[in-house]
Amino acid sequence: MSEDRIRIGVVAPGSPIDAGIADRVRNLAMDRFSDRLIEICFHPQCFLASGHFAGDDSARAQAFLDFANDETFHALWFARGGYGACRIAERVVPKLSDVARRKCYLGYSDAGSLLAALYKAGLTGLAHGPMAADINREGGEAAVERALSYLIDRSPDALEASVTPEADAAAFNMAILSQILGTPLEPDLTDHVLMLEEVSEHMYRIDRLLFHITGNPGIRKVAGIRLGRCSNIPANEPDFAQTEEQVMRHWCQVSGIPYLGRADIGHDIDNKVVPFGSAPTA
Amino acid sequence: MSEDRIRIGVVAPGSPIDAGIADRVRNLAMDRFSDRLIEICFHPQCFLASGHFAGDDSARAQAFLDFANDETFHALWFARGGYGACRIAERVVPKLSDVARRKCYLGYSDAGSLLAALYKAGLTGLAHGPMAADINREGGEAAVERALSYLIDRSPDALEASVTPEADAAAFNMAILSQILGTPLEPDLTDHVLMLEEVSEHMYRIDRLLFHITGNPGIRKVAGIRLGRCSNIPANEPDFAQTEEQVMRHWCQVSGIPYLGRADIGHDIDNKVVPFGSAPTA
Repeated sequence: MSEDRIRIGVVAPGSPIDAGIADRVRNLAMDRFSDRLIEICFHPQCFLASGHFAGDDSARAQAFLDFANDETFHALWFARGGYGACRIAERVVPKLSDVARRKCYLGYSDAGSLLAALYKAGLTGLAHGPMAADINREGGEAAVERALSYLIDRSPDALEASVTPEADAAAFNMAILSQILGTPLEPDLTDHVLMLEEVSEHMYRIDRLLFHITGNPGIRKVAGIRLGRCSNIPANEPDFAQTEEQVMRHWCQVSGIPYLGRADIGHDIDNKVVPFGSAPTA
Repeated sequence: MSEDRIRIGVVAPGSPIDAGIADRVRNLAMDRFSDRLIEICFHPQCFLASGHFAGDDSARAQAFLDFANDETFHALWFARGGYGACRIAERVVPKLSDVARRKCYLGYSDAGSLLAALYKAGLTGLAHGPMAADINREGGEAAVERALSYLIDRSPDALEASVTPEADAAAFNMAILSQILGTPLEPDLTDHVLMLEEVSEHMYRIDRLLFHITGNPGIRKVAGIRLGRCSNIPANEPDFAQTEEQVMRHWCQVSGIPYLGRADIGHDIDNKVVPFGSAPTA
């Protein structure tokens, strides 16, 4: 049976989680995948606290490398976003082993900084999708089960509906993508379908983020942009008087980037999986 | 006497002001510069409202061009920040006349997007400093008087203390600079002393902004960075455990950019004037 055991390592490159999340995620995995040998191993680093971060930069980088370079883990799953992945990305990339390069990595939000750096470094198993901490959302079990079905079986049902093996794709939180553009973490997204979502940003900031993102020469080489959900938008004072889709259409028009419609991603339980590059065939 | 008349035009490239601000600023100018012929002319566009903006993009761009290209105005002063200058910068730059190129422009915060674009276009009379709406701050008369003394007389007393004719300088709000990097508005700041201030951003966002700014290849060519005031920082949850100066020192160390100490700029009444490029000789 040992060849059939799937080991998933969980690390927190940004903010920490509490032990309750780990327990609930493991229980859910046992319940929903009861006929499989699934082991979800939370690195102790996930529970550290150093100011804003789940341990200092060295601790978070080392935990990531511990699990990424460990051949017994089939996949590496990010525990949570928050903030901090950009601070460790440059220091972990040069230390990735061949084992790390063959692994699947799943996360979103702040973890996008690290996914970007890994994608730039040539890794092929990267995906934007739910994290362990999503179990804290109301109905979050669905998001976590979706993430596990992707990590364990590359389930096509977990994928964002427009994803196909024929087209390269990538997905990011708008603020996270904006803040890696021009840095050593910026990946080449030429000819990719770029999906963008946002949460808890005022409409004027979404407008400014899209000015920045679509004004970038590298981003102007994408095949097009799909707009994910923009949720929990604080009230704009005064009313912004434009929706996020109007704003996105405006900046696509200004920049000459094709607007391809909506994407089924966001900071919510319906957040679907978007593999970076071409989708794996099921 | 007509040669001694100084006409200052005021436009609002981002958010609008109310008429009370215009009245108070004009009264203050009459009071403090009673021996001079000063005319402060607020473009009607300053009082428009179109969603978030002081009129739509066309109205704001046209108002800017009206006054910038009007030879009877000696200087162009920005009414207020808010948001919106980045949306009109690319459309006004190609329409600047020679008259506009010889003029002085003063503002900060969101107006920095436009100052950046004008600086990139080769204008030499640009400066970061107080705006008309600063009169609304407690004690704001001091900021407005400082702005006027710079616009009218290039008063050396208005300048940030480290500014010298020997070194090029530039000053920005961190978020504004971050959001123009990589866009057509990004100016060449090679060998400049770069002064950065921030307001109303969480410490984790200041950290992320400085990751982004100092990670940019163009910014890595600056002579050094001075840290202005970071005011009204919302409580970080959890406590970030680092001050803005610790964070700035961290990113300067990571990026190899010299940290030159503090700058006397910020979203407050003590905000000093920082000319872009080399300071005008008094």
